[in-house]
Amino acid sequence: MTVKDNHGYHMSADEFRKHGYALIDWLADYALHVEQYPVLSQVAPGEIRSKLPPAAPQVGEPFDEIMADFERDILPGITHWQSPNFFAYFPANNSGPSILGELLSAGLGVQGMLWLTSPACTELETHVLDWIADILHLPEKFKSSGSGGGVIQDSASSATLCALLAARERATRFNSKEAGSNGRLVAYCSTQTHSSMEKACAIAGIGRKNLRKIATDSLLRMDTAALRDQIEADRSAGLQPFFVCATIGTTSTLAIDPVPEIADTCEEHRLWLHVDAAMAGSAAMCEEHNSLHRGVENADSYCFNPHKWMFTNFDCDCFFIADRQELIETLSILPEYLRNEHSESGEVIDYRDWQIPLGRRFRALKLWFVLRHYGVEGLKHHIREHVALTAQFAEWVSLSERFEIVVPVNLNLVCFRHVEGDEFNRKLLETLNKSGRIFISHTSVGNEYCLRFCVGQTATTESHVAAAWRLIEGTAAQLSENT
Amino acid sequence: MTVKDNHGYHMSADEFRKHGYALIDWLADYALHVEQYPVLSQVAPGEIRSKLPPAAPQVGEPFDEIMADFERDILPGITHWQSPNFFAYFPANNSGPSILGELLSAGLGVQGMLWLTSPACTELETHVLDWIADILHLPEKFKSSGSGGGVIQDSASSATLCALLAARERATRFNSKEAGSNGRLVAYCSTQTHSSMEKACAIAGIGRKNLRKIATDSLLRMDTAALRDQIEADRSAGLQPFFVCATIGTTSTLAIDPVPEIADTCEEHRLWLHVDAAMAGSAAMCEEHNSLHRGVENADSYCFNPHKWMFTNFDCDCFFIADRQELIETLSILPEYLRNEHSESGEVIDYRDWQIPLGRRFRALKLWFVLRHYGVEGLKHHIREHVALTAQFAEWVSLSERFEIVVPVNLNLVCFRHVEGDEFNRKLLETLNKSGRIFISHTSVGNEYCLRFCVGQTATTESHVAAAWRLIEGTAAQLSENT
Repeated sequence: MTVKDNHGYHMSADEFRKHGYALIDWLADYALHVEQYPVLSQVAPGEIRSKLPPAAPQVGEPFDEIMADFERDILPGITHWQSPNFFAYFPANNSGPSILGELLSAGLGVQGMLWLTSPACTELETHVLDWIADILHLPEKFKSSGSGGGVIQDSASSATLCALLAARERATRFNSKEAGSNGRLVAYCSTQTHSSMEKACAIAGIGRKNLRKIATDSLLRMDTAALRDQIEADRSAGLQPFFVCATIGTTSTLAIDPVPEIADTCEEHRLWLHVDAAMAGSAAMCEEHNSLHRGVENADSYCFNPHKWMFTNFDCDCFFIADRQELIETLSILPEYLRNEHSESGEVIDYRDWQIPLGRRFRALKLWFVLRHYGVEGLKHHIREHVALTAQFAEWVSLSERFEIVVPVNLNLVCFRHVEGDEFNRKLLETLNKSGRIFISHTSVGNEYCLRFCVGQTATTESHVAAAWRLIEGTAAQLSENT
Repeated sequence: MTVKDNHGYHMSADEFRKHGYALIDWLADYALHVEQYPVLSQVAPGEIRSKLPPAAPQVGEPFDEIMADFERDILPGITHWQSPNFFAYFPANNSGPSILGELLSAGLGVQGMLWLTSPACTELETHVLDWIADILHLPEKFKSSGSGGGVIQDSASSATLCALLAARERATRFNSKEAGSNGRLVAYCSTQTHSSMEKACAIAGIGRKNLRKIATDSLLRMDTAALRDQIEADRSAGLQPFFVCATIGTTSTLAIDPVPEIADTCEEHRLWLHVDAAMAGSAAMCEEHNSLHRGVENADSYCFNPHKWMFTNFDCDCFFIADRQELIETLSILPEYLRNEHSESGEVIDYRDWQIPLGRRFRALKLWFVLRHYGVEGLKHHIREHVALTAQFAEWVSLSERFEIVVPVNLNLVCFRHVEGDEFNRKLLETLNKSGRIFISHTSVGNEYCLRFCVGQTATTESHVAAAWRLIEGTAAQLSENT
C-alpha cells in the first residue's frame, strides 16, 4: 500500500468494486454453505485472540489478505445465527434485501440525528412505521397522522427504556424540578418479563428494588389480580405506581400476558402501559394471529423487533408511542450548533429526541427493502411456514414417550424436556450443542430445567426441523443407554 | 414475485449476487459522483413522504424497481455526508474497507450479546480496542490486560451515559438499595460540554438541574478554579458531587479542557472523571498531537469516535473504562435463558453487561478492516492532511479583511465570522447551504453567531477547500453589495 496521487491511502473506486463483488460472492456462498460449519462456535475462551497479532499494523495490508485472515482466524469463532439449524433463543433472521439495505445505508453514510441532516432518513422511517402500524393492526394513535408515531430503536431494551423515561416524566415532571427522583416511583412487570425491564429501572434511577415482578398463572401469564393487589398495597404504603410492562410473547416461553385486563388496571390507576411484543409482534399480521394485539389499543407504547422474525438484520426494533410529545419533552435538548429553521418550525420530526443516543443510522432503508421485496403476502407466508413447522415439531415431541411438552405451544416456540430430569436435560443440551449440528437453548419453568426449540431462521425448512428432531431423539437414546 | 420451490419468497443466492454487484457498482459510482448532488438536501418538509404510497405492498416487487424508486424518490432527500464539500458539524467519515466490514457483519447476521453467541464478535472487539488504546497512547489500565477494557458503543452519548451510571453506582451502591436515587448527586461539566451529558443526567435520574455547567476561560476551556469552588459549595450545601465530564475537543469550537488539573480536583474530591474525546481523540495517534491526551491517565473512563474522524462508518464509538468490574456490576442482570458455563466461569467477556441494550452487532469487523487497510501510517497521513487543509483555510480567513477567526484554531475546525455581524452571518450561512455547493454549520461564541468549517470527510482535498473558500468569499461579497 503506497500513497497514491488522487486518493492517498483510500480504497479506490475500482478496488472497492473488485473487493465488493468478491464479498458479495462470499456472502452468497456463505448462505448456501452455512450448514458446513458447527452452528455453535466450538472455540475455547481466548482461542480467537491468540491468533491475532499484538499490535495494529503500521503499514496497510491488501484487502485479500484481510479476508483470508477473516476466514482462517475469525470464522471459527462465529456462532452461525443464520444457519437453518439455529433453533436457540429467539431467531435474528435476515434476508438478501435486508443485507443490501444495510449495505446501501453504510455506503451513503448519512447520520440522521435531525430531519435536516437527511430528510429522507427521517421521512422514510416515519412512513414505513406507519405502514407497519397498519399491517400489524395497531391503533391509529400510534401513527404519525395521529398523536403518536413510530421510530426505529436498536433493540427492545432501548424501546422499553424510552417508554419508562417518558412515563417517569409524566409521573413526576422530573426534569423540570430541582430535586432528584422522588424515590417513590414503582414499576410493574411479571416474573417472566425480559431482563431489559429490570435493566431499564436500574438505568433510569428507579432502582431495581422498585420493580415489582408480579406472579404468573399456570400459563406463565401475568396474574392481573396479583397486579391489582400489589398496586393497591404500594399505594397504601405511600409509594407511587407509574408504569406496567406487559409482554406479548415472553422470552422464556412465549406466554401472552392478558393485555386487555392489564390495560383496565392501568387506566383505573392512571399508569403508563408499555407492551413488549419483541418476538411475537410480527405474527399479528396474519389474520389467524390478529388477536395477539388485543388490548394494545389501550397501551401508551408498544414495540416489536423486525430483527427477530421479519427478515431484517439486527438491529431494528420498531417502537410506537401514543403521544409523541411526551417522549420528545423527556429527551429533547437543543444546543445552539443543532438549531435550524426546520426544527424550530415544528413541521419536521427530529428523531434524536425519540431515542437515547444523538446520532442514528439510516435503518429504515433495510426495512423498506424487506417490505417491498416480500410484500405483506411473502412475510405472512414465511411466518405461517415457521408456525406450521413448530406445530410439526411439537407433534413429534408429544408423540414421543421419552419427551414431554412443558407449556402449551404458542407460535414458533416449543418448550419441552426429556422425562429423565434436570441433569439429563442439561447433559442432552450440552451434547447437542457440542455436536455443532444444531443449536438450541434452555430455560426454567416452575424450577424445572427445560429445552427451547424456536423455529424462525430464514433458511430453515421441514428437512432441518425433522433432522433436528431425529438428532435430539437419537442423542437422548444414546445418553440414556450410557447412564 | 412468486413462491419458489426451494426458498419461498426469499431472494435466491443468484439474485443476491446480481443485485449485490449492481449495488456495489452504484456505491462505487456514488463515491465518484457525489459532488453532482446538492450537499444539503433541498427538499421541503413532507416532500419525500408525498412520493411514497400510503400502504405497504401486498405483493413483493422486483429489486430493480426498489432501487429505481430509491434513486428517484429517496435520493433527493439525502444530505450527502460523504460529499467532499461537507464541512458542517463534525464529519462522519467513511471508507471502502469500513463499508465492506459493515456488509460482512450484516451478512453474517450474528448477535453478540454473549461471548457464546459469537466468540469472535467479542474477542475481536476486545483485541482491536486494546490495539487502539496503544495507538492513542491511552494508559494500560484501559486495556483488557489491566483492570479495564474497551467496548464499542453506538455513540459517545451512550458511552457518557454508561460512565455516568457506573459512577452513580460507585457513589451510591444504588441498585443494591431499597430506596430510589438519593436526590443529592451532582455532576459537573462545562458550558461547552456536549448536550449528551445533560441528556444522560436526565435519563439516569440525576436530574438536569443537578448538572452544573462550569464557566470557561477565554479559550472556552473549563475553568478549573470555578469547578473547585462549585464542588465545595455543593458539598457545603449537603449535596454529593460524584462525576465530572471533561472534553478534549468540544463540539462547538474544539476547545481542550485542562484534563490534568481537572483530574487533580477529581482525585482530591474522589469524583469519577470521564473524558469525552469523541472528535479529537483520533488525532492523538500523531506524534505532534500526543499531548491531547495529557491527564487521561488519571481518568476513570474515556471515549472517542472512529465514526467521526477515523474512516469508519457510523456507528462506532470506542469506550474505555479503567475498572471493568464497576461497569459490569452496574449493568448486569442474568436471566436463566442466558446462563451458560462460559459466562459463569468468569473467563469470558459478555459485552451485554457493558452497554444499555442487550443485543449487539459485530461492529469490530469494520474497525478491524479499517485499521488493517490503512495501517496506522495511513490513518496518520489523512488526519495530518485534514489538519493541514484546515490551517490553509484558516490562513485564507485571517488574510481576508472581511472575515475574522473567532477562536484559535485547533486541529480541523475553523470558527470564523464575517465582520458585518450576526444577521449577515446568518444570511451568509443560509445562502451558502441553499446553493447546495457546500454545507457548513454554525455555533455561538460569547453570544456572537459564528460559522464553523470542519475538514474531515474522506474525499476532501485541497481543491475542495479552496473552492469552498472562494464560494464563501464570493457569496459574502455579493450579499454585501446587495445590502
